[in-house]
Amino acid sequence: MRYELYYWPEIQGRGEFVRLVLEEAGADYVDVARARGGENKMFALMQRAKLKNAPFAPPFLKVGNLIIAQTANILLYLGRRHRLVPASEAGVYWTHQLELTIADFLVEIHDTHHPIGSGLYYEDQKKESKRRARDFLANRVPKFLGYFETVLARNKTGFLVGPRATTPDFSLFQIVEGLRYAFPKTMLRLQRKYPRVVALHDRVAQRPRIAAYLRSERRIPFNQMGIFRHYPELEGS
Amino acid sequence: MRYELYYWPEIQGRGEFVRLVLEEAGADYVDVARARGGENKMFALMQRAKLKNAPFAPPFLKVGNLIIAQTANILLYLGRRHRLVPASEAGVYWTHQLELTIADFLVEIHDTHHPIGSGLYYEDQKKESKRRARDFLANRVPKFLGYFETVLARNKTGFLVGPRATTPDFSLFQIVEGLRYAFPKTMLRLQRKYPRVVALHDRVAQRPRIAAYLRSERRIPFNQMGIFRHYPELEGS
Repeated sequence: MRYELYYWPEIQGRGEFVRLVLEEAGADYVDVARARGGENKMFALMQRAKLKNAPFAPPFLKVGNLIIAQTANILLYLGRRHRLVPASEAGVYWTHQLELTIADFLVEIHDTHHPIGSGLYYEDQKKESKRRARDFLANRVPKFLGYFETVLARNKTGFLVGPRATTPDFSLFQIVEGLRYAFPKTMLRLQRKYPRVVALHDRVAQRPRIAAYLRSERRIPFNQMGIFRHYPELEGS
Repeated sequence: MRYELYYWPEIQGRGEFVRLVLEEAGADYVDVARARGGENKMFALMQRAKLKNAPFAPPFLKVGNLIIAQTANILLYLGRRHRLVPASEAGVYWTHQLELTIADFLVEIHDTHHPIGSGLYYEDQKKESKRRARDFLANRVPKFLGYFETVLARNKTGFLVGPRATTPDFSLFQIVEGLRYAFPKTMLRLQRKYPRVVALHDRVAQRPRIAAYLRSERRIPFNQMGIFRHYPELEGS
């Protein structure tokens, strides 16, 4: 059955974490809102009055009658179906735990340019953004990347979980990509401290399906509307 | 097997969402860090050098050799074991999706008093907190509570999912409790618009095991160190 992914058509955003896993799985999917009329179809589905399990927000995945929202939840579902999550109970919870930690990290990345309100323009919270980004780059990036570096060091396989790639490997790849886009100066300096994270990023980028995806038009370029934004002033430039 | 819950001993925080479900399940558990020497035991476990699946942060649950962190992940595990999550696949993902939406809400609640950095004092980000709280109360609380009101209206059973109580019912109870503590004036005005959410709160509070728990010393009172804090100036007082 073909997967229908519903997400904002002009940004990578949270949808990108789902796209990467769909691409790695070689899954048959359609990125609904990127087709003509697709965005209206997304709104119509979200607002369908009788839908018992309406999502709070995109991204969501539709598989037949099943609708699943919340990025980490979608990745749990896809990972289990496409062997990108271990089969054991302990493996499922550990993999999902890493995904949820990445989701927490992503909220903090977003809030570097929206520390006051997601409904306000960046320009209207620029001063606060500078303060938040300074704290984020000094304290939170090292804490999160240091954590994943430790997980990689202890697992010893080059992947976060077990002997093979699982969903959080692709998500961490995207985090590194995004941080390099948003904070290039800082990442150039910081990433040397996290060689295993960088090596994982490179390994994921070279997987044939991911490499093909990244070269394709299906990969939306980073831009100033997404979660990762490059505002030089937030790096103290 | 006895559950070991690891969480900061002096606050409700994220641990409270786990405590509520353990209490409702009538589970045999120990709140490790609240016993003498327990907090050191928690740190020792987190810093154990060979622990492959070390948590990023509390709360975490230890069940034999299994360690599970991330609040929603813990609730998924406990819910499945104690019939507080439906048995069907669709039910599992829907229930977990609601839990994750509550987790997102909780981050925003926390950030009303820490919009700049979780490592900084409130007093050092008070000005920004006022701005963030204003936006949060005007836009985000109605959006989240309105969403859960709709879910309850469509489910028609008085619970969020299916015919019986599931983990997000207890989490939403805690959100209402906490918002009333943190923003009493605003909630007095707002909650009339969400009668089903309030009714769910009351229904949960009256369940025998929850009622007994709330009266017990196991329930830590709200205080100014937790996620829910009462700073009158954040309500525009």
